[in-house]
Amino acid sequence: MNDKIMGSENKVLKRIFNLDTNAFAEGALDIKTKEIVGLACSLVLRCDDCVKYHLGKCHEMKMTKAEIMEACSIANLIGGTIVIPHLRRAVEYWEVLDQER
Amino acid sequence: MNDKIMGSENKVLKRIFNLDTNAFAEGALDIKTKEIVGLACSLVLRCDDCVKYHLGKCHEMKMTKAEIMEACSIANLIGGTIVIPHLRRAVEYWEVLDQER
Amino acid sequence: MNDKIMGSENKVLKRIFNLDTNAFAEGALDIKTKEIVGLACSLVLRCDDCVKYHLGKCHEMKMTKAEIMEACSIANLIGGTIVIPHLRRAVEYWEVLDQER
Amino acid sequence: MNDKIMGSENKVLKRIFNLDTNAFAEGALDIKTKEIVGLACSLVLRCDDCVKYHLGKCHEMKMTKAEIMEACSIANLIGGTIVIPHLRRAVEYWEVLDQER
Amino acid sequence: MNDKIMGSENKVLKRIFNLDTNAFAEGALDIKTKEIVGLACSLVLRCDDCVKYHLGKCHEMKMTKAEIMEACSIANLIGGTIVIPHLRRAVEYWEVLDQER
Amino acid sequence: MNDKIMGSENKVLKRIFNLDTNAFAEGALDIKTKEIVGLACSLVLRCDDCVKYHLGKCHEMKMTKAEIMEACSIANLIGGTIVIPHLRRAVEYWEVLDQER
Repeated sequence: MNDKIMGSENKVLKRIFNLDTNAFAEGALDIKTKEIVGLACSLVLRCDDCVKYHLGKCHEMKMTKAEIMEACSIANLIGGTIVIPHLRRAVEYWEVLDQER
Repeated sequence: MNDKIMGSENKVLKRIFNLDTNAFAEGALDIKTKEIVGLACSLVLRCDDCVKYHLGKCHEMKMTKAEIMEACSIANLIGGTIVIPHLRRAVEYWEVLDQER
Repeated sequence: MNDKIMGSENKVLKRIFNLDTNAFAEGALDIKTKEIVGLACSLVLRCDDCVKYHLGKCHEMKMTKAEIMEACSIANLIGGTIVIPHLRRAVEYWEVLDQER
Repeated sequence: MNDKIMGSENKVLKRIFNLDTNAFAEGALDIKTKEIVGLACSLVLRCDDCVKYHLGKCHEMKMTKAEIMEACSIANLIGGTIVIPHLRRAVEYWEVLDQER
Repeated sequence: MNDKIMGSENKVLKRIFNLDTNAFAEGALDIKTKEIVGLACSLVLRCDDCVKYHLGKCHEMKMTKAEIMEACSIANLIGGTIVIPHLRRAVEYWEVLDQER
Repeated sequence: MNDKIMGSENKVLKRIFNLDTNAFAEGALDIKTKEIVGLACSLVLRCDDCVKYHLGKCHEMKMTKAEIMEACSIANLIGGTIVIPHLRRAVEYWEVLDQER
């Protein structure tokens, strides 16, 4: 579906998709920090798909479960217990990623 | 006002306030990363007071403007242009912190 | 400003404003419970004006500070620490209401 | 389920449901503009069911895919990349509507 | 999954989970009022899992459908029609709870 | 402050700012429709600065108050009464724009 959107004539959408690559590239902040930031923002905004995407990136970079749980705990504190169902699914998905390795 | 809330009889509120200290303490993630996470989450949730609080912490830790701007750019991409007015106030406040040093 | 909006030709807005009176009237739930619900919802959605409105109603009905603080603590737990700046302003406003009595 | 809610004794809910018909009727703004507004608001608020509902209305009115994509791109810019998973499902659903015609 | 999170080493998450029990215990406000508050907050924040949780608690306490519908109508008025899909699922779930009794 | 952000070294932020111009340019949808969409999205997301920005654009294009009020009423219905304080400030600002003409 991403390919279809990128293949459409809509320039604004294409550029937003491209910006994503830029924003998470190595820079003043290293890419691990950036993915952790992406993960926590996705959690407080309660988007399961986005959480999974960033968990995948964090897992590829060999981040530890303790690191992930700390990022999640900050998101859970800032975003409140309304975040808990998403936290559960995040922890569940992390286990899947571990098993797939 | 924080003191008044902490001095009240309400246990739940007191504990939430205490958790804040725990969540941002050195752990699997270092405190710089945690404050950057706090900053970005506050931006996507569009809370100026929270943004200022974390900017203050980041400034104390001698983080650079480039680091702050990268965290802000991720928050702005994830959270959209609705975040821009808060970004403006964040940049403004960072200048105030620089001048006060 | 409310009068101006009610005086406009826009039926939908007028009806939304009227519904407000209906929704908070005595019914299966008593009006105290309803105002507490209105207060907590306003807090988790982080609308200071709405919080003040419902605090005013709760104060008129002689609700105690302990009752208000419990409603606030639930809102703060569900909505997270992002709610804290609004909680501070709520407690501040409750003191104003006490002093005005 | 709508019928059950409309059939219940709760006046406030019934009136909210009725207002929906009023708000999207031809007026100072034409109904196409109104459905586009409904679509974009549903996207920034990230409600898939609401997005589908307005996409259905837009499709009935023979709006073009280019029009839909422009509305979506504005919603995606204002609401940020957190909107992307909902955008994907919207584009997917538009294809379903095209196939059903 | 809750057990796994409670069994993890992350203190902040454990404490947030524990606070939940405290916040909804009998106090200045009775537990029925608190669950109604939890239900309405979950609805305006549009979290189906949280709505179901509080509906379950309300059902255990023998609250009536009229009480639930009034709480839902306030949430729907405050939170807008974007809440309607969650309202539908809430009414649906209440019927399931009735049938299971 | 916009100039400062545009003058900074952060590419992602610069591009987001530039996209704004693209997204609201004449296209499959005319610019009036796009500004109405921008206004309604800003209202449901409850950003006063963004609402003012789009009201200014709508006023420049000689849109009528009835058109603005209809867009606002849809936003208010979708977003709920939590939007009302922002609606009030929007109507107030429209009067200022009228007086300045």
